[in-house]
Amino acid sequence: MFRIILYSTILSLSIFSKSYLKLFTNGKTYEPRWKSLNSRSIPQWYDNAKVGIFLHWGVYSVPSIQDEWFWFNWKTGKEPSVSLMKLNYPRRFTYQAFAKYFTAEFFNPDEWADLFKKSGAEYVVLTTKHHDGYTLWPSTYSFSWNSQDIGPKKDIVGTLAEAVRRKELRFGTYYSLFEWYNRLYLTDVIFHYTTNKYVTSRMIPEMVELVQKYKPDIFWTDGEWETTDIYWNSTHFLTWLYNESPVKDTVVVTDRWGRNIRCSHGGVITCYDRYNPKIRDKRKFENAMTLDKYSWGYRRNTFIAEILTINKLIQEMVEAVSCGGNILINVGPTHDGRIDLIFQERLLDLGKWLEINHEAIKYTKPWKYQNDSTTGTVWYTKNEKVVYAIALHWPKNNVLTLGSANTLFETSAIVTLLGYPKQLSWKESNREVNIEFPDKATVKTDWAWALKIEPTNIK
Amino acid sequence: MFRIILYSTILSLSIFSKSYLKLFTNGKTYEPRWKSLNSRSIPQWYDNAKVGIFLHWGVYSVPSIQDEWFWFNWKTGKEPSVSLMKLNYPRRFTYQAFAKYFTAEFFNPDEWADLFKKSGAEYVVLTTKHHDGYTLWPSTYSFSWNSQDIGPKKDIVGTLAEAVRRKELRFGTYYSLFEWYNRLYLTDVIFHYTTNKYVTSRMIPEMVELVQKYKPDIFWTDGEWETTDIYWNSTHFLTWLYNESPVKDTVVVTDRWGRNIRCSHGGVITCYDRYNPKIRDKRKFENAMTLDKYSWGYRRNTFIAEILTINKLIQEMVEAVSCGGNILINVGPTHDGRIDLIFQERLLDLGKWLEINHEAIKYTKPWKYQNDSTTGTVWYTKNEKVVYAIALHWPKNNVLTLGSANTLFETSAIVTLLGYPKQLSWKESNREVNIEFPDKATVKTDWAWALKIEPTNIK
Amino acid sequence: MFRIILYSTILSLSIFSKSYLKLFTNGKTYEPRWKSLNSRSIPQWYDNAKVGIFLHWGVYSVPSIQDEWFWFNWKTGKEPSVSLMKLNYPRRFTYQAFAKYFTAEFFNPDEWADLFKKSGAEYVVLTTKHHDGYTLWPSTYSFSWNSQDIGPKKDIVGTLAEAVRRKELRFGTYYSLFEWYNRLYLTDVIFHYTTNKYVTSRMIPEMVELVQKYKPDIFWTDGEWETTDIYWNSTHFLTWLYNESPVKDTVVVTDRWGRNIRCSHGGVITCYDRYNPKIRDKRKFENAMTLDKYSWGYRRNTFIAEILTINKLIQEMVEAVSCGGNILINVGPTHDGRIDLIFQERLLDLGKWLEINHEAIKYTKPWKYQNDSTTGTVWYTKNEKVVYAIALHWPKNNVLTLGSANTLFETSAIVTLLGYPKQLSWKESNREVNIEFPDKATVKTDWAWALKIEPTNIK
Amino acid sequence: MFRIILYSTILSLSIFSKSYLKLFTNGKTYEPRWKSLNSRSIPQWYDNAKVGIFLHWGVYSVPSIQDEWFWFNWKTGKEPSVSLMKLNYPRRFTYQAFAKYFTAEFFNPDEWADLFKKSGAEYVVLTTKHHDGYTLWPSTYSFSWNSQDIGPKKDIVGTLAEAVRRKELRFGTYYSLFEWYNRLYLTDVIFHYTTNKYVTSRMIPEMVELVQKYKPDIFWTDGEWETTDIYWNSTHFLTWLYNESPVKDTVVVTDRWGRNIRCSHGGVITCYDRYNPKIRDKRKFENAMTLDKYSWGYRRNTFIAEILTINKLIQEMVEAVSCGGNILINVGPTHDGRIDLIFQERLLDLGKWLEINHEAIKYTKPWKYQNDSTTGTVWYTKNEKVVYAIALHWPKNNVLTLGSANTLFETSAIVTLLGYPKQLSWKESNREVNIEFPDKATVKTDWAWALKIEPTNIK
Repeated sequence: MFRIILYSTILSLSIFSKSYLKLFTNGKTYEPRWKSLNSRSIPQWYDNAKVGIFLHWGVYSVPSIQDEWFWFNWKTGKEPSVSLMKLNYPRRFTYQAFAKYFTAEFFNPDEWADLFKKSGAEYVVLTTKHHDGYTLWPSTYSFSWNSQDIGPKKDIVGTLAEAVRRKELRFGTYYSLFEWYNRLYLTDVIFHYTTNKYVTSRMIPEMVELVQKYKPDIFWTDGEWETTDIYWNSTHFLTWLYNESPVKDTVVVTDRWGRNIRCSHGGVITCYDRYNPKIRDKRKFENAMTLDKYSWGYRRNTFIAEILTINKLIQEMVEAVSCGGNILINVGPTHDGRIDLIFQERLLDLGKWLEINHEAIKYTKPWKYQNDSTTGTVWYTKNEKVVYAIALHWPKNNVLTLGSANTLFETSAIVTLLGYPKQLSWKESNREVNIEFPDKATVKTDWAWALKIEPTNIK
Repeated sequence: MFRIILYSTILSLSIFSKSYLKLFTNGKTYEPRWKSLNSRSIPQWYDNAKVGIFLHWGVYSVPSIQDEWFWFNWKTGKEPSVSLMKLNYPRRFTYQAFAKYFTAEFFNPDEWADLFKKSGAEYVVLTTKHHDGYTLWPSTYSFSWNSQDIGPKKDIVGTLAEAVRRKELRFGTYYSLFEWYNRLYLTDVIFHYTTNKYVTSRMIPEMVELVQKYKPDIFWTDGEWETTDIYWNSTHFLTWLYNESPVKDTVVVTDRWGRNIRCSHGGVITCYDRYNPKIRDKRKFENAMTLDKYSWGYRRNTFIAEILTINKLIQEMVEAVSCGGNILINVGPTHDGRIDLIFQERLLDLGKWLEINHEAIKYTKPWKYQNDSTTGTVWYTKNEKVVYAIALHWPKNNVLTLGSANTLFETSAIVTLLGYPKQLSWKESNREVNIEFPDKATVKTDWAWALKIEPTNIK
Repeated sequence: MFRIILYSTILSLSIFSKSYLKLFTNGKTYEPRWKSLNSRSIPQWYDNAKVGIFLHWGVYSVPSIQDEWFWFNWKTGKEPSVSLMKLNYPRRFTYQAFAKYFTAEFFNPDEWADLFKKSGAEYVVLTTKHHDGYTLWPSTYSFSWNSQDIGPKKDIVGTLAEAVRRKELRFGTYYSLFEWYNRLYLTDVIFHYTTNKYVTSRMIPEMVELVQKYKPDIFWTDGEWETTDIYWNSTHFLTWLYNESPVKDTVVVTDRWGRNIRCSHGGVITCYDRYNPKIRDKRKFENAMTLDKYSWGYRRNTFIAEILTINKLIQEMVEAVSCGGNILINVGPTHDGRIDLIFQERLLDLGKWLEINHEAIKYTKPWKYQNDSTTGTVWYTKNEKVVYAIALHWPKNNVLTLGSANTLFETSAIVTLLGYPKQLSWKESNREVNIEFPDKATVKTDWAWALKIEPTNIK
Repeated sequence: MFRIILYSTILSLSIFSKSYLKLFTNGKTYEPRWKSLNSRSIPQWYDNAKVGIFLHWGVYSVPSIQDEWFWFNWKTGKEPSVSLMKLNYPRRFTYQAFAKYFTAEFFNPDEWADLFKKSGAEYVVLTTKHHDGYTLWPSTYSFSWNSQDIGPKKDIVGTLAEAVRRKELRFGTYYSLFEWYNRLYLTDVIFHYTTNKYVTSRMIPEMVELVQKYKPDIFWTDGEWETTDIYWNSTHFLTWLYNESPVKDTVVVTDRWGRNIRCSHGGVITCYDRYNPKIRDKRKFENAMTLDKYSWGYRRNTFIAEILTINKLIQEMVEAVSCGGNILINVGPTHDGRIDLIFQERLLDLGKWLEINHEAIKYTKPWKYQNDSTTGTVWYTKNEKVVYAIALHWPKNNVLTLGSANTLFETSAIVTLLGYPKQLSWKESNREVNIEFPDKATVKTDWAWALKIEPTNIK
C-alpha cells in the first residue's frame, strides 16, 4: 500500500506540475506563514465596493425550515425541524432525498443579477458548498452530490457567475471547510485530525477546482472553527492562491481559516456573523448579515416581523461603512429559484436610497470620527475633502445638532442634503453645529439622510 | 501544492502504516506480479460449493427496465430506456434522483438467506457497487451516494452478510472497478490513465474498506476491461489481499483485473458472462449466469418466455460442474426488496432437485469425460470411486445408452438412479452400455436424472 | 326546494325518456320482481365458455399489500397495512394520494389479451369499480376519482374491452355496489337506507353508463351484502338491463344484488368467493377464485408457497366444470400494468393443458355422476355421447379404477387418453372398471389426465 | 328507469321535506323571482365593515404559475403554464395529481385570522370551491376531490371559519357555480343545458350543505356567466337562502347568479373583477381586487413590481368606500399554507393606516360628492355630521385646495388631520377652501391623509 500511495502521488503531481515546479524556481511573494500572508493588502476594488449580496442556497432550501443548519438541527433534535420531518415525511427519508426537490425551475440568473445590480451592490457571494457538502457546481470530488447530478441539473456557480459578471458585478464563492456528515471528514475527526484524507482527497482539490474554473473575486471560507489551520492546510492553499492562482491579483479572502484564526489572520476581517463593531476597525472588515433575522437560508416559517426593515438595513450599512467595513447582505433564494418578494422589495428600496446617496457610501473612507458625539444616530464617512454625516432619523424640529463636526465648520462649510437641491443653513454654537433641515415634504429621500459637508476657506 | 500533497501522503500512511510497513520487513508469500499471484490455489471451500447465488441490486432496480446498464442505455439513446424516461419522468430527472425510490421496504435478509439456503446454493455474491458507483454500504468514499445516505437508509452489505452467514452460507462482494460517470474516474480517462486520482482516492481505499469491514469470502471484480491492471493497481491490491488482509486464507477472487487479464490471470476464471465452455477447463471457472435471459438487474419489461426454465437452469448447472466449474445463478431483487415469485419458484425447484441429487454435484470433481459420446445430453461428474451420469432427458423407451462409460462396467457396476430405491439393470453391447430406466411414474425426480455408477470388482 | 327537485326530475327524464316511455307502451318480457327476473336463462355462450379471467386492478395495486381491501384494512388497524403506512408514508398521506402512483405505464392491453387467450379462457372480467369507488373509466359520476383523471390517464375499461374482443374473448365488468367511504353512500347509511342519494345520483347512473358505453357481456356485481336489493334498486336495474339495454340478449349477471339474494336470485350463482360446491348444482354457478391464496389484488408481500400450483388450479377448474360451474381465475395486475411472471406461467401452463384437453372441459355438461365413487380424485364431464373422466393423479401401478363408470362399459367402450395416440385397454370387474394407463414417459400431458370414454354397442 | 327516478325523487324529498313543506304552508317573504329577491336589503353589518379579505386557495396553489386558471391555461395552451408542465412534469401528470402536493403543513388558521384582524378587515371570504371543482371541505358531493380526502387532510373551510370568528371577523364562502371539466356539468353543456344533472345532483346540494354546515355570512358566487340563472336554479336557491336557511337574516350574496344577471340582480353588486366605478353607485357594491396585479391565486412567477404598493391599495379602498362600496382585498396563500411576506407587509401597513384613520372608512356613508372637483385625488366620506376628505397625495407647499367642500365651511368648521393632534387652519377663497397642512415630519400617518371636517354654526 505504501507503494500504491507513493505511486499515486507521483502521478497526481503530473497534473499540477507546471505551476508547482515554478514554486521551486521562481521567487515567490508569499510564504505559507501567517505573517507573510497577512502582509498582502486587500485589493482596492473590494474597499470601494462597500455593498455585496450574499446568497445561501442549497438542499436546505427545500425543507426551508428553521435555518440553513436544518440537517444538523433535525439530527440533533431541534424544533421545529424535528416536527416538520415527523409530521410530513416518511421515516426512511434522509436529508439527501431532499436534493431531488431542489428544482430551481425558476432560477433565472440574469434576473437575479439585474436585481442585485439595482440594489446598488457591487459583488455577489454564493454558497458553492455549505456544511452539508452539496456543491452548486459539478465538482469532480463530489460525485452525485452536486447540483448537476441531482436536483437542478445545472452548474449554478457557473451560470450565476456569468450573469453577475455580465452586469459588471464581482463574483465570490463561499466554501465551507468542514462538513457535518461527510465520512471522509469524520474519519479524520475520529483520528483526532492526525489523518487528513478529507483535506487531501476532497477539500483542497475541490477548492483548487473552484478557483481554476470560476476565478472567484472573493474566496469566502467558513466552517473553519472545528480545528486548526494546520489540518485545513490553509496557509499552503493561500500561498498558492496568492502566488500562483489565476486570481492571485484580485482575489479577496476572509479570516476564516482555522480555529483561533478569525479576527487575527487572513484577509477581510469577519470575526463572527453580523459583525458590526460600531467602532473604527483599522483592518478591512465585512458585516455579513442577513435580511431574515434568524436564518441565512430561506425558511418558510418566517413572519414579516422577523425581516429587517429597510431602515434597519440602511442603518447596518451606514454603520459598517462608517467604521471601515463592507456589508454583505444575505438573502436566501427558494428551492425553486426565486428571490422572495420581500427581499426584492428591500433590495430595490436600498437601491433607491443608494441612487441618491451613493457618494456617501461608495469609494468613501472612514472619517476620524464614526458616530456623532451629540446625535449618536449620525454616522460619518469621508471622500477626499468632503465629509458625509448620515442621519438615521429625521431631526426633531427639523434641526440636526452635530457634536463631532465643528472642526469642519471652522472656517466655513457648504452643507447640502443629498436628494435636496438647495444648501442648508447652519449655525455654530457651543462647539456644536445646528443644521437646519428643509421641509420634509420636499425631500426626495426616505429612511436616512446624508449631509454633504464641504469645508471652505472663507468664513 | 507539491508540499501539500507530500504532506498528505505522509499523513495518509499513518493510517495504514501498521500493516504496510510489515510489507517491507516480513517475508511475504505473494508478490505483485501475476506469476506469483496466479500461484495461489483456489480455496477448497469454493470448489466444493458448486452453486452460488448472484444478486444484482441497486438504483437501476428502480427504473428496472431493459437491464442494469439502464443509466448507460438511457444516456446513449437505447430503447426502451429512453422512451420510459421521456414518457414518465420530468426532463430534469437525473439517474441519481432514482435513489430516493430505492426503498427496500420489503428487504428481509433472513428470508432471502432462507430462500438461498433452500435452493441448495452455498454462497451468495452481492453487487456492493455497480458501474453507477452507488454503494450498498455506507462507504467512506462515496458520501451521499450509498444505501445508507439515500434510499434504503440501511447497510445492505452488512445486514445481508450477517443473515447469509447465519444460514452457514458464504458471502461474496461484487465490486465494479470502473464507473460510467464518476468525474474522478473520467478525469483520469481524459488524461489517458496517466493520472490515478480515482484509483487512489476512491477505488483502492473503498476496496480495502469493503474487505476490512465485511470480510468477504469472494471478492468478485468487474468493469476492469476499460484499461490495464497497471492503472487499477490490481496486483498490489491482490498482494495485500493475499498476504495481509483479514480474509487472506479464505478469499476467492475472479480473473477480472484489467484489460486482457480475464481468462489468463487472477483467481477463478470467468472469461465472459454466462461462461459455459462445455469442455473441461483445468482451471477452476465459474459460469455467472442469470435467470432472466436478458438482464442481471430486475427489469419490469420481461415476459415469462424470457425466464430460464428449471430444465435449462439444471442443464447449465450440470454442464458447468461436469466441466470443472461452479455456477453463479443471478436473480435481480426489486427496488422494494423482494425476490420475484418466479425466481423463488426456480430456486426452490432447484433446491428440490438438489435435495435428491446433491451428491452428484456437491464435492464432486470432473471425470475424465464430460459429456457422453453417444447420448450428448448426459454429463459426468465423479466423487472418489463413484461416477455420476446425469441425463438431461428421459431416455426414449426408457433405455439410456452411454458411450463413454463402458470402462466403468468392465468388471461390474452397481447402477442406481438417485430418487429411486432399486438398482437398475444394464447391458453392455458393442462398447456401449444400455441402462434400463424404471417406470417414470415411480421416480421422484423430474427435469434431469442422475445415475450413480459404482464399479465393482466381481463381474 | 321541493320545486327545485321536481323540476330537476322532469329535466332528467328528458334524457332517458325515449327508452323509458316505451316501458309503459311495449309489452316487456321481464318485470322488476325476482320471480320474473329469475326466469331468464343464462346465455348459452357463457355455459360453453367454462373458463374466465378475473382482474382486480385499481388504486390498491399501488400499496399492494395484504389485499385489495387495503384501504379498509389500514383504516381499521389491520396488519401489515398499518405498519406499511406508518413506516413508509407521511402522516398526511391519504388513500387517494396513491392514485397518482397508479401509473400503468406497462399496461399493454393487447399483450394481456394475448396471454388470456393463450390460457384457454373465453372471457375476461375487470373490476371497473371496487369498494374504493375509483372507476377504471372516465365515469361521468366520479369526477377526479377515475383512471382518466388521476393515475393512468387512460380509459382502462375501454382499451381493455377492445383488446379482449379483438382476440374474440368476451368482456365483463365487475362493479361494486357499495363503497366504503363515499360520503354520499355514508349519508344514506346514516339515514338507515331510507334515503338513496347514492343510488340515484351515482350508482344507477354509473351502471347505466357502463352498460351503454362498454356493452359488457357480463355485469358482475359485488358489495351488495350491506343492505337489501330494495335500496340498491336491483330489480329495476335488471329489468332495464334485460328488456332495454344494448346487451339485453347476451349479458350475464351474478346473484349479488342485495342482502340474502346471493345463492337465491339473479343470474349465475356465486354464493361466496371461491365457491366450489363439489356437488352438482342445477343452477349455473361460477367459482370465482384467485391464484394468490390470500388476495385478489396484487400484493407484494406474497411468498411462492401462497400461489396456487398448476395442479391445484386444474383441480379447481375440473371440479367446477364437473359440477356444472364455470371458473373465474383471478390475477391481480401490478400498479404499473404488468401481469406478474408467476401468473403468466400458471396461465400459460393452463393453456398448454387445455390445448390437449379442451374437449373434456369446453362445451361439456355435467354427467350424472360428478366424482368417482372409487377414485375420488376423478371427475366426470360429458359431451353428447362421450363421457370424460379426468384423473387428478396418475394412478398407482398405472391402473385407474373407476367405480361410477361401469354402465358406460355395459356393451363396450372405446377409451382413450387425451394426449396419447392409442386406445387404452380396460377390464370390468366387480362393478368397477380398471383402465390401464400407458407408460407415463410417453404421455404428452402433465398435472391431470382426461380419459375419453365412448360407449359402443358391440361388446 | 322512469320508476327508478320517480322513486328516488320521493326518497330524496324525505330529507328536505320538513323545511320544504313549509314552503307551501307558510307565508314566505321572498319568492323565486328577481323582483322579489332584489327587494331584500343588504344586511347592515356588511355596509359597516367596508374592508374584507379574499382568499384564493386550492390545488392551483401547487403549480402556482400564471394564475388560478392554471388548469384551463395549461389545457388551452397558454404560457407559461404549458412550458412549466412540459419542462417539469411527466407526460402522464394530470391536474388532479397536484392535489397530493397541496400540503398546507404551515396552515395555522389562528395566525391567519390574527393577520386579517390586524389589517383592519372585518370579514374573510374563502374560495370553498373554484372552477376546478375541488372543495376545501369534505363535501358529500365531491368524494376524493376535496381537502379532506387528498392533500391537506383537513376541513379547511371549517377550521378557518372558526378561527376567523374567534377574532370576531365575519366569514364568507366563495363558490364557483360552473366547473371547467366536471363531466356531470359537461354532460349538461352537451345537451345545451336542457338537462341539469350537475345542478341537481352536485351543485345545489353542495351549496345547501355549505350553508347548513358553515353558516356563511357571505355567499359569494362566481362562474355564473356560462349560462342562465334558469339552469343554475339561482332564484330557487336564493329563495331558500333568504327564507329558510340558518343564515337567512345575516347572509350577504353577490350579483353573480347567471348570464346577464351581474350588475342587475342579486345582492351586492360586483359587476366585474376589480370593479371600481369611481362614481357613486346607489346600490351597495364591492371592489373585489387583488394585491397581485395579475393573479388571484398565489403564483411563483411574480416580480415585486407586479404587487400593488400600499399607496395603491389605500387608494383603491378609499375610492371604493367613497363611492359606496366595500373592498375585498385578495391574497393567494401558498400551497403549504403561508401568506406571503409581502402580503403580510401590505396588510399590516393597511392596518397601521386604519388604526389612525378608521373613522374615515368604517361605518361611513358616501357624501354628496365623491372626489374633489379641484384636487381630484381627494375623496370624501361622511359619518353623521362629519365629512372626511382623504388626500391621496401630500399637497404641494403643504396647502390642500378643496373645490367641493366649501358648503361645509359656510358657517364655520373645525378641521383636523387624523394622526395629528392640532386643528388645521383654513381659508376660503373663491368658492375653494385652502387648508394648511402641518409640517410633514410631525404627522403620524403616511400614504394618505384624512381630514375630518366638522361644520360648526358659529363662523
